[in-house]
Amino acid sequence: MQKLINDPADAALESLRGLQLAYPHLLRVQYNPHVVIRKDAPVKGKVAVISGSGSGHEPLNVGYVGKGMLDAACPGAIFTSPTPDQYLAATRAVDGGAGALYIVKNYTGGVLNTDIAQELALEEGYTVASVLVHDDVAVDQAANRRGMGAAVLVEKIAGAAAEAGKPLAAVARLAHRVAEQARSMGVALSSCTPPSVGHPTFQLPDRQIELGVGIHGEPGRRRMALAEADTIVDLLAAPILDDLELRAPDTVLAMVSGLGGTPQQELYIVYRRLHELLTQHGIRVERSLVGNYVTSLDMAGCTVTLLRLDPELLALWDAPVRTPALCW
Amino acid sequence: MQKLINDPADAALESLRGLQLAYPHLLRVQYNPHVVIRKDAPVKGKVAVISGSGSGHEPLNVGYVGKGMLDAACPGAIFTSPTPDQYLAATRAVDGGAGALYIVKNYTGGVLNTDIAQELALEEGYTVASVLVHDDVAVDQAANRRGMGAAVLVEKIAGAAAEAGKPLAAVARLAHRVAEQARSMGVALSSCTPPSVGHPTFQLPDRQIELGVGIHGEPGRRRMALAEADTIVDLLAAPILDDLELRAPDTVLAMVSGLGGTPQQELYIVYRRLHELLTQHGIRVERSLVGNYVTSLDMAGCTVTLLRLDPELLALWDAPVRTPALCW
Repeated sequence: MQKLINDPADAALESLRGLQLAYPHLLRVQYNPHVVIRKDAPVKGKVAVISGSGSGHEPLNVGYVGKGMLDAACPGAIFTSPTPDQYLAATRAVDGGAGALYIVKNYTGGVLNTDIAQELALEEGYTVASVLVHDDVAVDQAANRRGMGAAVLVEKIAGAAAEAGKPLAAVARLAHRVAEQARSMGVALSSCTPPSVGHPTFQLPDRQIELGVGIHGEPGRRRMALAEADTIVDLLAAPILDDLELRAPDTVLAMVSGLGGTPQQELYIVYRRLHELLTQHGIRVERSLVGNYVTSLDMAGCTVTLLRLDPELLALWDAPVRTPALCW
Repeated sequence: MQKLINDPADAALESLRGLQLAYPHLLRVQYNPHVVIRKDAPVKGKVAVISGSGSGHEPLNVGYVGKGMLDAACPGAIFTSPTPDQYLAATRAVDGGAGALYIVKNYTGGVLNTDIAQELALEEGYTVASVLVHDDVAVDQAANRRGMGAAVLVEKIAGAAAEAGKPLAAVARLAHRVAEQARSMGVALSSCTPPSVGHPTFQLPDRQIELGVGIHGEPGRRRMALAEADTIVDLLAAPILDDLELRAPDTVLAMVSGLGGTPQQELYIVYRRLHELLTQHGIRVERSLVGNYVTSLDMAGCTVTLLRLDPELLALWDAPVRTPALCW
């Protein structure tokens, strides 16, 4: 295991300490339970937007805390859903009196823990809504679809709606719309190695790729021989286009996220083909995001996410944002 | 070779096409010779800031084109200095009548090519100054020191000075000051594989690291056994502290850049120790940058860069910037 870490058991905690030291102007970190909090939270009268996920997907979610996006992020242990305690601590820290929205990716533990947190928060008098992100089209049954890159889009747009002063019901409604209109699929060119495990979580022989991989290395649709980037992009995009029933003259936001071990140059190559393919279908790419936005430790590969845009979602996407990982 | 590419010979070009499609609001790309140009260039009456490097170091330099930073970037072939033609085309495209500054990293080919370009540009009536970036303390002789992460800092600060309307002499003087007050050192935890080569450029056995590695995989100071992150950070920082004669109560900008294959979580762990170490020395970290800023394809590892700050450099650093890779 070739990693820049100390004791593997401390990796997630030490990473949070580094985040805090690097971005004191944007956020603060509260420990035990761990919560990353927007610096000026709670913002009085604003809906609080809270998201959580296992560590190892950075910048998701800790890098999305800041003005115009998340009020708080709950980082779990590596590849492990945050605990109800974390969500509850986050709610207490950032609730500004207008209620909170939990953004939940569809994994059994995550859903269970946020359900419990939501009950506990309600008992304490907080108003909490939640939205489920389940965008991974590699999984056939819609109910079992895993949350992937769409979380970034839900967080940005819900964050902008909250910042604009919309009430909880409206913020939740917009978040649902993004979750329903966004789909993703990923490909792994290598496995990944959690620090505390010390070896790759699955084996991928040389010149093989895992099409439809999950962001924790879950099996995908099929293992296949390494192909040209353009071929891979077409295989990732086709099920998304089908599932969203995208067609001319739809407009989309297109995201290509590296999984952590893939350089920017390759992501631009992937994006180039994705843009070309969408244009061939008469689908207009109105906005894009190309970089490491939702990762899987040191996995090589990428995910493709498409969101069908409408004028309201576009305006919220374009609203100012200032976080470690997204800024405009 | 597990890469998201098509024909390896097209990787650099296709990546540029993706960049152009992803950031049409910030830049445009001119081909043959390849130059990435700030969208609103030439800006009349403003000094033009131009930088070049081989491809494979993304976001350096193409991701730093935009308001407040570079007017143009010249991307060479992978790990290959741009040609004089590229610099000349860039100068013609972005000169706003106030002269141009070439930011040159200290590699034989790069220096030679920008010297030629500068002569050609002068013959065409352009006023051109240049600044040499040579920040890699892993190389003993100062004259032979390679350019690394300091290029990002020179580009940002020179770009801000130009944006503020300073004349060429002042922009060049500030760029020199940054180049003289910034030092770097890197460590590789893996080799890297250029697409057209198809195999790693050097061999690094498991549990060995290359301390002082160059950003093209050039040999470093020594090969050693993998150690804890904190130990590695101390070994990277010590020669920089010595060389810059940093001591209390100096203030610095601290940058930790991943080399392309290292996830964000590890970079935060590295930054945590760097901040702690500097604080122990009574050196105040006034600003920081933690992410993939100067990379080496898919190499695992990182570089550490420190810049001694003064109020003028700090104000220029803080000035607004809007590029694909830096924004505030």
